[in-house]
Amino acid sequence: MTTTPDEAVERAADELTRTVLASFDGAPERLRTLARGLVSHLHAFVRENDVTDEEWRYAIGFLTRTGHITSDVRQEFILLSDVLGVSSLVDVLGNARAAGATPSAVLGPFYVEGPPELPQGADISGGLDGEPVLADVTITDTAGVPVADAVVDVWQANKDGYYDVQLPDQEGPVLRGRLRTDAGGRLRFWTILPAPYPIPDDGPVGELLAAAGRHSMRAPHLHFMIAAPGRRTLVTQLFVEGGDYLDSDAVFGVKEPIIVPFSEQDDPAPDGRPGPWRRVEFTFRLA
Amino acid sequence: MTTTPDEAVERAADELTRTVLASFDGAPERLRTLARGLVSHLHAFVRENDVTDEEWRYAIGFLTRTGHITSDVRQEFILLSDVLGVSSLVDVLGNARAAGATPSAVLGPFYVEGPPELPQGADISGGLDGEPVLADVTITDTAGVPVADAVVDVWQANKDGYYDVQLPDQEGPVLRGRLRTDAGGRLRFWTILPAPYPIPDDGPVGELLAAAGRHSMRAPHLHFMIAAPGRRTLVTQLFVEGGDYLDSDAVFGVKEPIIVPFSEQDDPAPDGRPGPWRRVEFTFRLA
Ligand SMILES: [Fe+2]
Ligand SMILES: [Fe+2]
Repeated sequence: MTTTPDEAVERAADELTRTVLASFDGAPERLRTLARGLVSHLHAFVRENDVTDEEWRYAIGFLTRTGHITSDVRQEFILLSDVLGVSSLVDVLGNARAAGATPSAVLGPFYVEGPPELPQGADISGGLDGEPVLADVTITDTAGVPVADAVVDVWQANKDGYYDVQLPDQEGPVLRGRLRTDAGGRLRFWTILPAPYPIPDDGPVGELLAAAGRHSMRAPHLHFMIAAPGRRTLVTQLFVEGGDYLDSDAVFGVKEPIIVPFSEQDDPAPDGRPGPWRRVEFTFRLA
Repeated sequence: MTTTPDEAVERAADELTRTVLASFDGAPERLRTLARGLVSHLHAFVRENDVTDEEWRYAIGFLTRTGHITSDVRQEFILLSDVLGVSSLVDVLGNARAAGATPSAVLGPFYVEGPPELPQGADISGGLDGEPVLADVTITDTAGVPVADAVVDVWQANKDGYYDVQLPDQEGPVLRGRLRTDAGGRLRFWTILPAPYPIPDDGPVGELLAAAGRHSMRAPHLHFMIAAPGRRTLVTQLFVEGGDYLDSDAVFGVKEPIIVPFSEQDDPAPDGRPGPWRRVEFTFRLA
């Protein structure tokens, strides 16, 4: 009975993986399940690809740099999860637990707690340049019953793809606000058409995208966070139908049901404003 | 044709994974292979375990804390890789590329560049308390031909499991040194028996071990780094046969061929020292 070096390596690796899996035997059930699943997949990845010591050292360095660039105002691990489609996958599985509700989408890094409270019909654009959009949204439950007095936070990029917090000369919040639905579950507000924008690409995640020949652009979207008593809070986005990057969103956030037309209108705007304007209508269903 | 919510989720997740895999189509070959392998395994892990948003957020936080505790003098990502058996697996695969050579083992965090140069027969214990050990090692190539003038760095913990850099009152290096083999490829030096010691367990990795009910102890060992012109540098460890934790080394570093007896001797020590002493013999084969 002799073994080839390859067989010896296979046996040693099998034995090692078994030992590591067994080391989690005493863990509480969910941790045991997750740790064993993670170890199985990590070991399979390393073996299938015959990962070298040099590649392993590169990965350790990559994770270290990702940790060091992460701060209170920048979350590079979330960005990494985003560009590998993991955030979106967790999101898809979460949506499965809220059958009949509008699909959720990632929160993203530009949400700011406590946005300004604004009345029905407000214009959140703060006078910034851009194509005017009238948003006309309705909030219902999964049976279609309107939800009155729902708290609706909205935020978005401007016509150049920047959020207010990225504009050096912008003082105070703009293109963001907190509004409430009326008795019919309806909410209208004015804004401007959002532009595509790049995710932060000057860190390790940007390096990865560049090395892979991927762009860092997100398809244009409006963010919504919708809360109502007794309902599951919905964090989602509406994507501009016909916008750029819908098929190659850098964070894989686009879902068919939340791509909606922002249609150019021929009739005069309801508030009497001159010039071209668009209208977006959508009904959000809360679980 | 109707689909159940489960089927819809499966379809959406399949579609998402396909899209993420395709996003790496333009990457250079090795990156494409590794990125696709990583994405496949990460997505399979998330789906098989129906990972929740809350668990995902915990993981992001865990990685962030791991990054923030990592510094020039502490590498928590390597420790994480160690306790998941990934470092040892990469090591096993690397050994397969050096057939016939002595198995390698991880470098560990306690190697210090430029150890003191010591003559043949030196005592590296610097007078520290412990059971004296005479190490008698030979360096050969894979055919058994002795390698003269090989540079052999050795380092180890003391009888309480501490390296010199961890001893508050220790000035300068002790229990470490750089020696050279003689014309016969042989090297002898005196030291003391090393004790088991815990890996750093006051960070996220320690939390993981505690949550899983795992200890943080390493089996007792001597470290070796052996270099010679034209040979592949060998980084390895010799484990004390009969020592504690050989079956449950926290970083899965123990390999059968490098567990060796540190035998108690009955005859007088060759340097005439009184009292009990041990002897360890080993032949290292360089690729
Ligand atoms: Fe956004
Ligand atoms: Fe060690």
